[in-house]
Amino acid sequence: MSLIVINFKAYKEGFGKNALKLAKIAEDIASRCNEKLALAVSFLDLPVIVREVNLDVFAQHVDPISFGSFTGKICPEMLKEVGAKGSLINHSENRMKLSDIEFVVSKMKELDLISIVCTNNATTTAAAAALDPDFVAVEPPELIGTGISVSKARPEVVSRAVEVAKKVNSKVKVLCGAGISSREDYLRALELGAEGVLLASGVVKAKDQKKALEELVGL
Amino acid sequence: MSLIVINFKAYKEGFGKNALKLAKIAEDIASRCNEKLALAVSFLDLPVIVREVNLDVFAQHVDPISFGSFTGKICPEMLKEVGAKGSLINHSENRMKLSDIEFVVSKMKELDLISIVCTNNATTTAAAAALDPDFVAVEPPELIGTGISVSKARPEVVSRAVEVAKKVNSKVKVLCGAGISSREDYLRALELGAEGVLLASGVVKAKDQKKALEELVGL
Amino acid sequence: MSLIVINFKAYKEGFGKNALKLAKIAEDIASRCNEKLALAVSFLDLPVIVREVNLDVFAQHVDPISFGSFTGKICPEMLKEVGAKGSLINHSENRMKLSDIEFVVSKMKELDLISIVCTNNATTTAAAAALDPDFVAVEPPELIGTGISVSKARPEVVSRAVEVAKKVNSKVKVLCGAGISSREDYLRALELGAEGVLLASGVVKAKDQKKALEELVGL
Amino acid sequence: MSLIVINFKAYKEGFGKNALKLAKIAEDIASRCNEKLALAVSFLDLPVIVREVNLDVFAQHVDPISFGSFTGKICPEMLKEVGAKGSLINHSENRMKLSDIEFVVSKMKELDLISIVCTNNATTTAAAAALDPDFVAVEPPELIGTGISVSKARPEVVSRAVEVAKKVNSKVKVLCGAGISSREDYLRALELGAEGVLLASGVVKAKDQKKALEELVGL
Repeated sequence: MSLIVINFKAYKEGFGKNALKLAKIAEDIASRCNEKLALAVSFLDLPVIVREVNLDVFAQHVDPISFGSFTGKICPEMLKEVGAKGSLINHSENRMKLSDIEFVVSKMKELDLISIVCTNNATTTAAAAALDPDFVAVEPPELIGTGISVSKARPEVVSRAVEVAKKVNSKVKVLCGAGISSREDYLRALELGAEGVLLASGVVKAKDQKKALEELVGL
Repeated sequence: MSLIVINFKAYKEGFGKNALKLAKIAEDIASRCNEKLALAVSFLDLPVIVREVNLDVFAQHVDPISFGSFTGKICPEMLKEVGAKGSLINHSENRMKLSDIEFVVSKMKELDLISIVCTNNATTTAAAAALDPDFVAVEPPELIGTGISVSKARPEVVSRAVEVAKKVNSKVKVLCGAGISSREDYLRALELGAEGVLLASGVVKAKDQKKALEELVGL
Repeated sequence: MSLIVINFKAYKEGFGKNALKLAKIAEDIASRCNEKLALAVSFLDLPVIVREVNLDVFAQHVDPISFGSFTGKICPEMLKEVGAKGSLINHSENRMKLSDIEFVVSKMKELDLISIVCTNNATTTAAAAALDPDFVAVEPPELIGTGISVSKARPEVVSRAVEVAKKVNSKVKVLCGAGISSREDYLRALELGAEGVLLASGVVKAKDQKKALEELVGL
Repeated sequence: MSLIVINFKAYKEGFGKNALKLAKIAEDIASRCNEKLALAVSFLDLPVIVREVNLDVFAQHVDPISFGSFTGKICPEMLKEVGAKGSLINHSENRMKLSDIEFVVSKMKELDLISIVCTNNATTTAAAAALDPDFVAVEPPELIGTGISVSKARPEVVSRAVEVAKKVNSKVKVLCGAGISSREDYLRALELGAEGVLLASGVVKAKDQKKALEELVGL
């Protein structure tokens, strides 16, 4: 079963009460379709959504630290303690140093948390795969938030990322993202070898979030 | 009335259930003493502590953004929505660019959130005061977490920071921090002109948090 | 006498042989006009331009360190040793943390190097003035490189920056920049209270650099 | 023939006149031994050392940009133009984001410049190898500058880095570094599979640089 990760970002429509509402919509839709849905939500919303919603909930970022003398930082151990399933790492809007990505991926693995390392092209996807995360998610930054889907506009990025990532690490799963909003975009991504997608505005900023998500999963 | 801000940092002893427990201890002590206590807690703990504890609750950091296409970031508007009183800004363990500090302070003011801008010496305290936050908090980084208090080891930093900050902005309130753990350290800080203190390990990492905090407030 | 600082940036037209050529043009024009010209050039060009050109030469950035175990960093002591007059600090394209700006300004002062701290609005200009650099240079980032001059499009930013900076530090000199290319822009900046300007593309990217600079200085 | 890269860092003993003197020493020694020596020097020294010294000269860092509107940044094209052979990338003291490392490595390749991507452990070395630089250089940060050599203290890091890097990219060459100062350290590194070493303080901070370097190369 492939995976659809909905990144709520810092969108007003995906924060606070809106986050919980959207998470509930996703939970309902997930129960009625054949796709696996997961949510990446704000730190401020994470504990309540973990408690209230029966879907895998991810953080959007995690800092390369452990418990200790740090201020305003979130460590993997904290995510574990609040019940997150894992975290996005190195998203285009929160890029990290190579050594920090490695630290976090390694720590997440120890804690049985799922790592989704975002990348910007096929080459960085191969590099990320070498760190042995659970998922890599290739997203050409220039398409993020555009509604022009990577699977249509840059199909070769997806297929090439799958190829080089699997060559480096046959166990890693490859997602793709950027501009994906329709079921067609999604299915095209799967045809290109992706094992799921990462999306945000296509659902979170949709006029009708429920309808957008239902369309995406084929309801 | 002067202010004591307890920074829970990313200490295990100040996170999750421990955070709520410590917050409850602080709430109880605040009700029995003449000091004003405030708490700076992890994003992941903030909503629950705001709801459960009758003290001012601050974030430890806030990003220089508004709602929008950002991943893993927390904007001032989010802090407002969850009921935070304000935020630490530019803590030694989360230093920010000058332009970003200004953006955040300005946005916080619009939202009626309290800004506490941390600084490392008297000169940067004057600069921070020019941004017109509610508080500046001078903390020589080399003393943070040492148990050697700024008010004893570097009293001239505190008195000089108060002097230059007030000269630039007569309304700004000046806190000091770094190494403060005892009532003596605290009272000495007030004598030097500080209007409160910022502390962390002295209470959060204390063997007996309740006792440490009671001692601090003179119970 | 007011000051015109030409920032060569990382423009091809302001690097290597082109940098030396443009620096020589500026040197010639400076000898024929009543304006004081200074150049801010690439680290890679700095030593040769210092040696070959009789104008004040600045670095475009300097790191908050001293000599020591750092890789790929430039400290103020290095600038001194190669004969730079000073450095731009905190340019919009190289923003720094508040504590780092203070470190550098303070170190530059010890070494008798000139500090030009760039800022993005009136409030950050006041903050920068509190650090006691030789110059602050206010440049609204949204106008940089546009050819729409700050002195025409946002005159109140300039006059307000001058006002608040001088209030905090009566000795600091205030430059302005962003979009300045013509003599009219320049004179307007002076009328608004600026003691000089910082410019880049208006001269460096001009089809005829000599002509552009001559026009600017009133030849 | 294996490679010895001497990183001059921002050491006073490796800057300005001292840099040229040390570079001349290295040039002389290189002509009398069987090792290949290369120098990684400050941006401010690079042009003169390229001109005066007949050894491969590297930058210590390069920014992920091309010519354009950037201030205080050095792009690969600039290194090419001044005659650098290549650059260290992602040194422990100048860590970069994964996407930026990839940008730079790719751009360097286009320009026929040599990339040496530094890493902190075997896993990040494999990731760096996936970016297809000419060299990866594994250096456990905790040993840098200690005089305790990686090849003695952490031999398994070197051999493992060689193994995983070659598996990902059979063409990449693997250096190691951190704490290396003696010929014994160097030869041990080669035995572990490294094709050269990166060192700094062992030579640059040596009381007698010439003697230290002669000892290293077996003269």
